[in-house]
Amino acid sequence: MDYETRNRMNDEKKYVVIVERLARRGVNEMDIAKITYKLQTQYIPDLEMDICLDHVKRVLKKREVQNAILTGLELDTLAEKGMLSEPLQTIIASDYGLYGIDEILALSIVNVYGSIGSTNFGYVDKVKPGIIGELDKKTNGKVVNTFLDDIVGAIAAAAASSIAHKYADADFDTELYKKQ
Amino acid sequence: MDYETRNRMNDEKKYVVIVERLARRGVNEMDIAKITYKLQTQYIPDLEMDICLDHVKRVLKKREVQNAILTGLELDTLAEKGMLSEPLQTIIASDYGLYGIDEILALSIVNVYGSIGSTNFGYVDKVKPGIIGELDKKTNGKVVNTFLDDIVGAIAAAAASSIAHKYADADFDTELYKKQ
Amino acid sequence: MDYETRNRMNDEKKYVVIVERLARRGVNEMDIAKITYKLQTQYIPDLEMDICLDHVKRVLKKREVQNAILTGLELDTLAEKGMLSEPLQTIIASDYGLYGIDEILALSIVNVYGSIGSTNFGYVDKVKPGIIGELDKKTNGKVVNTFLDDIVGAIAAAAASSIAHKYADADFDTELYKKQ
Amino acid sequence: MDYETRNRMNDEKKYVVIVERLARRGVNEMDIAKITYKLQTQYIPDLEMDICLDHVKRVLKKREVQNAILTGLELDTLAEKGMLSEPLQTIIASDYGLYGIDEILALSIVNVYGSIGSTNFGYVDKVKPGIIGELDKKTNGKVVNTFLDDIVGAIAAAAASSIAHKYADADFDTELYKKQ
Repeated sequence: MDYETRNRMNDEKKYVVIVERLARRGVNEMDIAKITYKLQTQYIPDLEMDICLDHVKRVLKKREVQNAILTGLELDTLAEKGMLSEPLQTIIASDYGLYGIDEILALSIVNVYGSIGSTNFGYVDKVKPGIIGELDKKTNGKVVNTFLDDIVGAIAAAAASSIAHKYADADFDTELYKKQ
Repeated sequence: MDYETRNRMNDEKKYVVIVERLARRGVNEMDIAKITYKLQTQYIPDLEMDICLDHVKRVLKKREVQNAILTGLELDTLAEKGMLSEPLQTIIASDYGLYGIDEILALSIVNVYGSIGSTNFGYVDKVKPGIIGELDKKTNGKVVNTFLDDIVGAIAAAAASSIAHKYADADFDTELYKKQ
Repeated sequence: MDYETRNRMNDEKKYVVIVERLARRGVNEMDIAKITYKLQTQYIPDLEMDICLDHVKRVLKKREVQNAILTGLELDTLAEKGMLSEPLQTIIASDYGLYGIDEILALSIVNVYGSIGSTNFGYVDKVKPGIIGELDKKTNGKVVNTFLDDIVGAIAAAAASSIAHKYADADFDTELYKKQ
Repeated sequence: MDYETRNRMNDEKKYVVIVERLARRGVNEMDIAKITYKLQTQYIPDLEMDICLDHVKRVLKKREVQNAILTGLELDTLAEKGMLSEPLQTIIASDYGLYGIDEILALSIVNVYGSIGSTNFGYVDKVKPGIIGELDKKTNGKVVNTFLDDIVGAIAAAAASSIAHKYADADFDTELYKKQ
C-alpha cells in the first residue's frame, strides 16, 4: 500500500475518533454546520446545509485540526476532574478571560484556511451563536468548556472559509488574469 | 545620547508622520478611539474615552504597527492612481474579497497584543462599526480604502486588547498564584 | 461548467502568471525545489528532486500564496524604480532589518501548512541557502529583492512541510489511534 | 493601590512561579540567555550576557508567555506520569514530529515580538543549540520535554527579538523620517 492510500485510511480512522470525542462533550457535526451556515449564507444565497456539513467534515479530517481538538478537550476534561496543578487548574476551570491559550489553539485551526479564517473566528468568538453560547454558559467549574467553545467556533469558521474559497467568483478571477 | 533616549525620540517623530498619513486618508485618532470604546465598554463599565485615545496613541507608536500602516496606505494610494501592475491593480482597486493580504497586514498589528487582539479584530472586520463602515463603502475604484479599513479596525482592536490587559483583574491573578 | 472545474482552470491560469513573474525576477521553480530538497532530505532519505518540484508547483497554485507573491514582487519592483513615497522607499530599497512586513507576507505563505511551515521558514531565513543567499546579496538599491528572498524561502519551506505531512509515518498514526 | 501598581506586583509574583517551574524541569534563566546571546551577538558585537539575561527576564514577565509556559509544562508532566488519554498520551510522550501543538504554543510566545521573533524561533528549533539539544535528547517516554524544548527556544528567540528592537539603528530611523 502506498503512502497516499495509507494516509487516507489513517485520516478516516482519526476522524471517527474526533467525532466521537466531540459527541462525548455534547457537540455533533450538525451543531457546527449550523454556525457555518449562519456565517456564509449572507454571501452565498443558495447555500445548502449539506454543503456546510460536508465542509465541517473536511475540516475535521485535517491533522493539525485533530491535534488541536485532542489537546483542548484533554485540558477541559482534566480541569473538570481537578487534575491540573495550580494556578492552571483555576485558570482553566474558571475560563479566565486573559488566559489566551484557548484562542491560540483555535487560531491554529483557522490559520490553515488563510486570513478569512481568522476574521470569521473572531466574529463567532464575540457573538457566540448557537451551540457556542450554550457551551460558554455551561462553564462553571463543574462542567469545563473553556477550550471546547473556542474549538467549535474555529471549526465552524474554518468550514465557512473553506466554502468561501470554493465558491469564489471564478469568472472574476479569470478576468483579472487576462488583464496582466 | 543612549539608545533608549534616541529610540524614544525617534518613535515620537515617526508617530507624527503616521498620524498625518492617516489624516490625509480621512481618519483621525478619535475616530479609532470611538471603536475601541465600543469594543471595551461592555467589559469595563467606567471606561472613559480619554483612556481609549491614550491606548490608540500607544499602539501607533509601535514600530511593527507603523510599518504595516505605511505599507497598506501606500498600496491603497498607488491603486487609486492606477499605478500597480495587473492583476494586482484590479484586485486592490475592487477590494476583492479573497485577496487576504489586507487582513494579513491587519493581523500583524493585532498579533502584538496576543490572541485577544485577533478576536477583537475579527469582530470589527465583520460588523464594521463607525468610520470602518464609511471607509468600506467609499472603496469604488476612485477612492481605494482596501487596506485602510482593515488597518483602522486592527488599531482599534489592538488598543482594546491593550486596555483589557491593563485592567485585568489583578486581584484574581494574585489569588491564583497563591494557590500553587 | 461547475464551480470546481472553473476554479481549477482558473488556478492553472494564475499559476502560469506567477511562474512567469518569478522568472522575470530571476527565480525558477527548480531553484526553489533545491532548497526544499535540502530541508527535507535528512528526514526522508529516498527523497527525489521530482517530488520536491511537484510540491513547489502545488504551493504555487494556492490562492493566498499567489496573492502574497504578487504583492511582494510589486513592492520590490516599485522600490527598484523609486516609485514609493518616503520613508517606505528607503526602508524597502535598503532592506531595513526591522521592517518586518517582508517576513509577515512570507509567514502568510507558510502558515497554510501548519506550524512546521513556520519553523522551516525561520531556518532558511537565517541560513539563506542557494538562490536565497544570492538574492539577498543583490539587494543594493539598484536591484531590490527585499520581499523576493523571503518569498522564495517561504515557498521552499511550505513545499517541505507539504512533503512532511504526506510522508508522515502513517503506520505510527494508525498505531496511535488503535490505543484510545 | 491603582491598577498599574497591582498589575506590576502581580507580574512579579507570577514571574517567581514561572522561574521555579522551569528550574524544576532543569532549565534556568542563564541557560536561556546563552542561546539569546548566540542568536544576537553576530548583529551587536559589543553585546553582553547581562543584557541577554535582562531581556529573558522581561519576556518571562509577560502574561501570554507565562500562560503558554504553564500549559506546556503541565502537558509534559502529565505525559511523564502517563495521565493523558490515548492517543494524546503516546503522541506527547514520543514527541511525535507532526503533532505541531508544541510549536503552536512556542509561536504564541514569539509572536508578541513581531515577525523577527518567528524567524529566530524557526532557526533555534532546527539547530537546537545549548540546553535545547540536551532537552530534546532526553525525551524518551520516561522524561518528556516535548513542550519544554520548544518553549525554551521561544523564550530565547523572543529575548533576541526584544534586544534587536531596542538596539535598532535609531539614527537610520531618524534619517528615514526626515525624508518624507
